[in-house]
Amino acid sequence: MKPFLATPRKAVENLKKGVYSVGVFGFGHVGSIIGVGWGLAGARIIGMTLDRKAIRMFESGISPFPEEAYLSEHISVLRRRGLLEVTDDYHYGARKSDIKIIAVPVYLSEEKKPDLAPVVEVSKKIGEYISKGDVVIVETSLPPGTTRNLIKPILEEKSGFKADEDFALAYSPERISAGTALEDFLEKYPKIVGCDSLKSLELVSELYSAVVKKGVIKMSSTLAAETEKLFEGIYRDVNIALANELATFCEKIGVSFDEVQKAANSQPFSHLHNPGIGVGGACIPVYPYFVLEAATKHGIKLQITQLARSINEQATETFIRKIMDAVRLLQKEPVHCNFALLGLSFRGGTSDTRLSPALKILSFIEKLGASIRVCDPLVEKLEGKNYEVIKDWRKAVKGADVIIIASDHREFHEIRIGEASELAGKDLAILDGKNVINDFNAKPRYRVLYVGTGRPSFIIKPDSRKERVEI
Amino acid sequence: MKPFLATPRKAVENLKKGVYSVGVFGFGHVGSIIGVGWGLAGARIIGMTLDRKAIRMFESGISPFPEEAYLSEHISVLRRRGLLEVTDDYHYGARKSDIKIIAVPVYLSEEKKPDLAPVVEVSKKIGEYISKGDVVIVETSLPPGTTRNLIKPILEEKSGFKADEDFALAYSPERISAGTALEDFLEKYPKIVGCDSLKSLELVSELYSAVVKKGVIKMSSTLAAETEKLFEGIYRDVNIALANELATFCEKIGVSFDEVQKAANSQPFSHLHNPGIGVGGACIPVYPYFVLEAATKHGIKLQITQLARSINEQATETFIRKIMDAVRLLQKEPVHCNFALLGLSFRGGTSDTRLSPALKILSFIEKLGASIRVCDPLVEKLEGKNYEVIKDWRKAVKGADVIIIASDHREFHEIRIGEASELAGKDLAILDGKNVINDFNAKPRYRVLYVGTGRPSFIIKPDSRKERVEI
Repeated sequence: MKPFLATPRKAVENLKKGVYSVGVFGFGHVGSIIGVGWGLAGARIIGMTLDRKAIRMFESGISPFPEEAYLSEHISVLRRRGLLEVTDDYHYGARKSDIKIIAVPVYLSEEKKPDLAPVVEVSKKIGEYISKGDVVIVETSLPPGTTRNLIKPILEEKSGFKADEDFALAYSPERISAGTALEDFLEKYPKIVGCDSLKSLELVSELYSAVVKKGVIKMSSTLAAETEKLFEGIYRDVNIALANELATFCEKIGVSFDEVQKAANSQPFSHLHNPGIGVGGACIPVYPYFVLEAATKHGIKLQITQLARSINEQATETFIRKIMDAVRLLQKEPVHCNFALLGLSFRGGTSDTRLSPALKILSFIEKLGASIRVCDPLVEKLEGKNYEVIKDWRKAVKGADVIIIASDHREFHEIRIGEASELAGKDLAILDGKNVINDFNAKPRYRVLYVGTGRPSFIIKPDSRKERVEI
Repeated sequence: MKPFLATPRKAVENLKKGVYSVGVFGFGHVGSIIGVGWGLAGARIIGMTLDRKAIRMFESGISPFPEEAYLSEHISVLRRRGLLEVTDDYHYGARKSDIKIIAVPVYLSEEKKPDLAPVVEVSKKIGEYISKGDVVIVETSLPPGTTRNLIKPILEEKSGFKADEDFALAYSPERISAGTALEDFLEKYPKIVGCDSLKSLELVSELYSAVVKKGVIKMSSTLAAETEKLFEGIYRDVNIALANELATFCEKIGVSFDEVQKAANSQPFSHLHNPGIGVGGACIPVYPYFVLEAATKHGIKLQITQLARSINEQATETFIRKIMDAVRLLQKEPVHCNFALLGLSFRGGTSDTRLSPALKILSFIEKLGASIRVCDPLVEKLEGKNYEVIKDWRKAVKGADVIIIASDHREFHEIRIGEASELAGKDLAILDGKNVINDFNAKPRYRVLYVGTGRPSFIIKPDSRKERVEI
């Protein structure tokens, strides 16, 4: 019996017995984690994606996401048991599934408007094939009100059924972080479930309680659940902007932001974030705009949210200015410098380069016409570019005039000033956008200009004396 | 032997044996906690304050701070053992003490400039009596650089001794919260100690390690330690402002901020704060200005810090506007209303009314010329005003047209809509600035207009039906 026609308890029993097929619309990084999670709970999974290469990898039992390498084992097991299909046929998935999960991303247009086209398209396909008793769960981060005002009408119109009466409808945001995604989903946090009817809420909460370990937080509406996910992102964005602002203050007065931050955060009411060189990824730099747009429609201004976004967008420009200042301070010609760009992803531990500050920095150096090597232990290739992505930072910094550290991959914490200077073989500027370097008592072979983030800048001389400089 | 002439280990031994006298300059709420803490570690304490009433209470073994009632027992024990004197004679205290702790507050002038006069005055008195080997510890929250650039020169000039050579100098910010102050100091958090010489740092860290349980975080300079304390406050201020902004958004779109907040904070990377009606007390609304002034001197703008301050200052005005809107919506004449103002302190669990939003609200209602009762379970008296401060909220709301909840004292969480309506005996507006009320399925005797903070407003009718209204 279809899940929304059974009692929640019965539906959970069926789920565990493998009676239900779960269609995951958008089987990318997020979707595949969700699919594997439901698969481990007993469901049959149909993952849908247009990425042929990823489909082939899933079919061979290999995780297409290097930071989620552990997935391969689960994929293999689920496939062996016949519980996981991955296909580019969305109609097939829509027709065959009892539980339909939307996990396609929403990106921003050039004008910072959410592009809801993929969500609309997938909703239409789902609507065409909804049967009485089906369940639709939306996991994509969305502008507030999208489930109720956009997705629901499409599903109802295409299917001729009523949400919350004929089929269940829930909004349940994904809360995963690349690198620990499956654990985040299944073990770490409660699952947020918001519905616009008690009946949908009870069923979807029961089902999700059988999938995740930490249980479910039930919310009073899809709107409230959409909003909570976006607020998580705004909190981060604002606090990163605050850290950037306070880090600049620290540079000016000559103290280390990271020393101050560590001390402040030793009491539980302070959570000062890390400053940086801009915020990347498909989440934090995007969600504030969803809320800002909704606020404008309601005639209010969200001043802090807006200001934080603009500060974080300017952070990359500020860092680029520092790179140039550093080059000049060492009396080098930018165009004749060898640049080593360490880190392409938007943060350490992921291969995701979406909206990564490193790409902006790369464009800038390309325009300079200088020589450049790029290095990242997880990123395989830069879309549309011809660089060999070097895995080993030591190779990348050989003969470099300028080292730019743009992501905090684990491997980069090994960088030592002495060794870097040796490899460079000449005066060297290190622009440490992620404060991965901490051996300031080094005796480098040549002069090293060190520029951190929220730290006073200085030149370290071969005799290990430090001269403070303003950058 | 004076502490800075002994080895740190020997100094700690002496401390525990009661060899040293600790002078606490400013024996108010903060100073008395610090003094009692050192007394419990074995030192003789000389507390200095100009408050005669407080001195008499200390002499009778009674804590002058109702929220710190547990202190009375410690005071009695220390006095019985002859370890605690409290006096208004600062010269005596300066002359007799080996360890001199500065704990006078720094307030803001009308122009939002720090008033350092009390710190200067106390530093002069200390300087006059410093002996070789003494220790000076500054605990007052100060603009960055004050210890090094203002206090140290005064101490050196008045004494003829050199800081870090002849006497130890440290900056070690208090980190206590009213109501749990002694526990905060002694048990909960590490003590931050920053010095401008290793020798001072080692001694003061060892001494403080013998006083507090969680140990010491050593900082590389007094400047870094001053900065960390102020950043703790800015983090709070900015996040309260963000909560205020997002709460307004929630009111507009019709979801409850507190529901969204709770869900968002169920993962450990989100710490959305509580929105409110303005930020009071002598800390959070003050410290951002110390940093803003320093930033201006260095030619930079701290936009988020500044904006947060102005949002939080406006929050009280916004709340007052809501009070007026609510009165009008119930078609009452403001001047003929009975107002009940519940809560005078800047937050629940304290008697501290410094910069409390409640006082601004009170002024506004006074100007209206309406009748008003004020209620607070901890505040005894409003300086310069003639109100009887009612302890019991039930008495205060009898016959009220408008209840304003301005502090979240524990007792106010008992307020129920039904009982409040019964006591009021007529249509009633409740302005719940602290979201202490949660029984929205009540069947009140008369109409109740409920206006929360970051919650949709509504009228609850006697049949318990709710009608949403825009406030």
